[in-house]
Amino acid sequence: MKPSAKTGDTEQIVKRIQDLGLNVHLSEGEAHTVIGVVGDTQRLDRSSFEVMAGVDRTVRIAQPFKVASREFRSTETVIDVQGVQIGGTGTVVMAGPCSVESRSQIVETAHAVKEAGAHILRGGAYKPRSSPYSFQGLGEEGLVLLAEAREATGLPIITEVMGVSEVQLVAQYADVLQIGARNMQNYRLLQAVGQVDTPVFLKRGLSSTLQEMLMSAEYILANGNYNVILCERGIRTFERFTRNTLDINAIPALKQLSHLPVIGDPSHGTGKWDMVGPIAKACLAAGADGLMIEVHPDPATAWSDGAQSLKLERFADLMAELRGLSSYLGRPM
Amino acid sequence: MKPSAKTGDTEQIVKRIQDLGLNVHLSEGEAHTVIGVVGDTQRLDRSSFEVMAGVDRTVRIAQPFKVASREFRSTETVIDVQGVQIGGTGTVVMAGPCSVESRSQIVETAHAVKEAGAHILRGGAYKPRSSPYSFQGLGEEGLVLLAEAREATGLPIITEVMGVSEVQLVAQYADVLQIGARNMQNYRLLQAVGQVDTPVFLKRGLSSTLQEMLMSAEYILANGNYNVILCERGIRTFERFTRNTLDINAIPALKQLSHLPVIGDPSHGTGKWDMVGPIAKACLAAGADGLMIEVHPDPATAWSDGAQSLKLERFADLMAELRGLSSYLGRPM
Amino acid sequence: MKPSAKTGDTEQIVKRIQDLGLNVHLSEGEAHTVIGVVGDTQRLDRSSFEVMAGVDRTVRIAQPFKVASREFRSTETVIDVQGVQIGGTGTVVMAGPCSVESRSQIVETAHAVKEAGAHILRGGAYKPRSSPYSFQGLGEEGLVLLAEAREATGLPIITEVMGVSEVQLVAQYADVLQIGARNMQNYRLLQAVGQVDTPVFLKRGLSSTLQEMLMSAEYILANGNYNVILCERGIRTFERFTRNTLDINAIPALKQLSHLPVIGDPSHGTGKWDMVGPIAKACLAAGADGLMIEVHPDPATAWSDGAQSLKLERFADLMAELRGLSSYLGRPM
Amino acid sequence: MKPSAKTGDTEQIVKRIQDLGLNVHLSEGEAHTVIGVVGDTQRLDRSSFEVMAGVDRTVRIAQPFKVASREFRSTETVIDVQGVQIGGTGTVVMAGPCSVESRSQIVETAHAVKEAGAHILRGGAYKPRSSPYSFQGLGEEGLVLLAEAREATGLPIITEVMGVSEVQLVAQYADVLQIGARNMQNYRLLQAVGQVDTPVFLKRGLSSTLQEMLMSAEYILANGNYNVILCERGIRTFERFTRNTLDINAIPALKQLSHLPVIGDPSHGTGKWDMVGPIAKACLAAGADGLMIEVHPDPATAWSDGAQSLKLERFADLMAELRGLSSYLGRPM
Repeated sequence: MKPSAKTGDTEQIVKRIQDLGLNVHLSEGEAHTVIGVVGDTQRLDRSSFEVMAGVDRTVRIAQPFKVASREFRSTETVIDVQGVQIGGTGTVVMAGPCSVESRSQIVETAHAVKEAGAHILRGGAYKPRSSPYSFQGLGEEGLVLLAEAREATGLPIITEVMGVSEVQLVAQYADVLQIGARNMQNYRLLQAVGQVDTPVFLKRGLSSTLQEMLMSAEYILANGNYNVILCERGIRTFERFTRNTLDINAIPALKQLSHLPVIGDPSHGTGKWDMVGPIAKACLAAGADGLMIEVHPDPATAWSDGAQSLKLERFADLMAELRGLSSYLGRPM
Repeated sequence: MKPSAKTGDTEQIVKRIQDLGLNVHLSEGEAHTVIGVVGDTQRLDRSSFEVMAGVDRTVRIAQPFKVASREFRSTETVIDVQGVQIGGTGTVVMAGPCSVESRSQIVETAHAVKEAGAHILRGGAYKPRSSPYSFQGLGEEGLVLLAEAREATGLPIITEVMGVSEVQLVAQYADVLQIGARNMQNYRLLQAVGQVDTPVFLKRGLSSTLQEMLMSAEYILANGNYNVILCERGIRTFERFTRNTLDINAIPALKQLSHLPVIGDPSHGTGKWDMVGPIAKACLAAGADGLMIEVHPDPATAWSDGAQSLKLERFADLMAELRGLSSYLGRPM
Repeated sequence: MKPSAKTGDTEQIVKRIQDLGLNVHLSEGEAHTVIGVVGDTQRLDRSSFEVMAGVDRTVRIAQPFKVASREFRSTETVIDVQGVQIGGTGTVVMAGPCSVESRSQIVETAHAVKEAGAHILRGGAYKPRSSPYSFQGLGEEGLVLLAEAREATGLPIITEVMGVSEVQLVAQYADVLQIGARNMQNYRLLQAVGQVDTPVFLKRGLSSTLQEMLMSAEYILANGNYNVILCERGIRTFERFTRNTLDINAIPALKQLSHLPVIGDPSHGTGKWDMVGPIAKACLAAGADGLMIEVHPDPATAWSDGAQSLKLERFADLMAELRGLSSYLGRPM
Repeated sequence: MKPSAKTGDTEQIVKRIQDLGLNVHLSEGEAHTVIGVVGDTQRLDRSSFEVMAGVDRTVRIAQPFKVASREFRSTETVIDVQGVQIGGTGTVVMAGPCSVESRSQIVETAHAVKEAGAHILRGGAYKPRSSPYSFQGLGEEGLVLLAEAREATGLPIITEVMGVSEVQLVAQYADVLQIGARNMQNYRLLQAVGQVDTPVFLKRGLSSTLQEMLMSAEYILANGNYNVILCERGIRTFERFTRNTLDINAIPALKQLSHLPVIGDPSHGTGKWDMVGPIAKACLAAGADGLMIEVHPDPATAWSDGAQSLKLERFADLMAELRGLSSYLGRPM
């Protein structure tokens, strides 16, 4: 309550809380009175209390996510993707091109990243692009090519799904469904992927707090799909030298708040291929369960994200370094 | 190019540009060489050039939006919503509750805002909420109630559409389709509302640049719906006293960059009912074509956004002030 | 406290609070216990409580600023600058070039802005520049020229002071001392200007919250100088179209939180001369006590900030509009 | 130039550039003309060009920092602090309390951090605090106590200097002068520490770009002090779970742009003692030359920054881990 609040103001609020079937705990300071609300506040709209006379502001005490929280489940969730364990004792690497461009491009990349030690192949068939005039992905043809690359190498595949109407189709091909940063709060899509069994890879929104990210995970969990993987891929800040600012703090913070696995994406997190190596290592050192890295046979002719893609041989060299580091850290690849 | 770039590096890039059917303009400074690309660069992925040897960075010269731009159309676009002109010589006010809660709530509010001088009734039937456990809106029942309120008052209605599969249904009821901030880059949804005739009210994303917002408008325009209204509703910054930071600069900036009408939303832009008045006036003074304002018969019991909603009588008082100001500014209500 | 906190944890904290001579108010919820601290918490370091076993987080209830607050003084502070009232019933305009460049430049500008209706002349003699190689201001010579312009026109002058050792010198010439955005938390400088009588114009830091800004004002007030004027000049965000994002919300918010006068700076707030007009009007409509506007006889040859400076005749035209608007708003110039 | 620019507009600009003694390179695209400025643009104010008729915007090609840049010096700068090499082949750790509180506190901490393997003792004698009512540091008494701790352990000391008038005094005691985040653009202070020989530890401002940080380093270098150490300590973003967002990208980015050593500060970068470990490791993995870590014998009674301070034994455990990791990474402590 404001220092200027009157006794009647406080009484009004206490009455309203009690009318809602909740209990009240009153604490009077020298200048401020604090009114505690005790009980299941889940469906309460605290915003509405802020218009009542005498109220200064409201503060949430309990975290708003439940199933995603450490309190709900204290042990790590381990997600099995065709035999690859994400969130377990080892470190997982997902690699591949931003966009699927052709059979030869995706199959060549798949062979190369497998040989370098990657566990899952990534590749975009449906591409969210800022411009309606940019290349939008090969669509189902891209899914078919990804499946061929899986056939050829045995690597499970992860690919993005952009719309509710594509979920069934993409789920027929993909081993993991990716929700992109721009769709992190597309609730219809979250509900839809919550209703299939395929694991979901949820990328953090450009300006989403960790709490909002876990609330988006909660949408998927609350719809029945418990296989959610979180991905820190950089947030938007004022800094312009890098494409995004990878929030390294998010990695230990998400592990503290939630039992879900956490993957770092140094490609989007920096936007620059020559920074991918140091930031990939930083993610592992900070405790990430794995990495997603963009790789392309010829970045200079890539149809998207060329600047942040590693050449095949550079990726192989980096994987050698990461293999050593992850072993040193006790979570071998 | 970097100061350390070699002649061969520059030659490689020139060759690649020419191979793409574009022209090159070379400019050599004391330390840096600048390579200009001349021609239709629309489908070029400039990111891929950044991995080529010797390249320092790339800079876009032309704006990436076309149909939304002032260059495309120099006169103001005026959108007719059941006889209400948005973007014309007058000022338009859209008002109503955050959520449709009941027949009496929406009809009472509709009568009150009409009497106060509002032109369009707003109300949410489908509500995007951070928590899957919060009230999600009345759904189609809410649309029916909105239609009743329109029937009772003659006010056209605007309401949010959250998913592609709801577009047809919502368009049957609504006079304007709202795309919420969290869906500003939900491209499937933008494509879908681009394929109907109903005007679209596009809210700026929490961390979207003006350029990105105009690119999202471009998605709708490029799909054939030319009736797009832009809305500045506050961006996310470090400031915590207000819910969002209304970017007042966006109003003259969008008017400069585009021919589309621009509406200010002081309710979401501040998150506090007692700041709605001053910021509403500021939006008009900055050149907005209108306002969207949240109003509720009893904000303290609102199911959502109570803190930023005006009571009916406060809204009426504010409208009296806004009517005077808009006349003074030469754009009467 | 965390849901997992033990009884002993709570007891430890209660004991520590009591040992510090403060009172405790305990509130037990279903999952969380909340411990209220009652008494003068001014010198308490709440951060240290966050390391104690079982603590989830700490929340401040009382505002940390005292003398700057509305609670301390409910009526508006009016500051007299050589007869010009800032924060009173009228609207005040401060105008002039970014930098003092020459006698003719500053005297010509002073005459022009006076004729157009400005009340105070601004001009920089000491310039904070990102680069050590950029023009750093004329120094004391600039102060002498400003004094000549005051002599010639009768306009009081405001100019920036960058360092403690310059305070006495600048205060000999200036009627108002400006603290620039980059020095908003230069506490030595705040203390120094708190110890002179000259009014202080405090610009908001690029990423300072309103609370931090009022704490910086508190430094000046606590040192004995009660003549503090607050200035919203734009904050740093992700948006790149404008130089800064003028936080229009700050104007009513600061008026609500504090009794000190608030000035808007549309020149720095936008960085673009053709946006200065609309944003100046928006500041007045939002309740600002006045404006600071950059004006230059020939912006294209200005030594700094040319892009955001108005030509003399454009400034005169704008002043005519602002005079009308401020009268309409009941606070005539 | 804008698409609407006229030939005369371009001619005016070309003429002005030539009048300034610079050369012009003209490039005409389909919609836009690009005018390149060739020569020493150091003292040119590009802002002033943006007001000339027909100009769309200006883009800087060359980096504005010189002496701090990789182009100026390709090999790493190694700074010697009483025999400790910063930026050399090994990894350096600076540790100690936020504030010096008493002889026993600082001497006990110094012994403990030395035993744990730290190389330099940190401790604040002058404290920049948001509130004028908070503890402001012990001042010179704190410096004396730091010197005693150095005497007792042999560890060199680093401490913050807040004002120009304190530089000589602090430099008499300290082995490294720290410039805090809030003073990163306090140019008078940068000039003053540029005129002494003592190495300077420059912390990144809360909302400073990397370019601005290197420009601040340039102020020190340009005044003759070449011993500048850069420190990434977290930036301000919208995320509220952590005190700041440590920008891990800054570490490889600064190493790429500059030859100066780069230190990571996981204590301020997170604000939470239980996140210091993972983020310290991440900084080393990303290529930092060392770390600054806050340590306190009893964080729960610390006068400042308790929440982010490690207990002595936790610090010792962390150092054991960091020693192993830095050896693994090839830069042993």
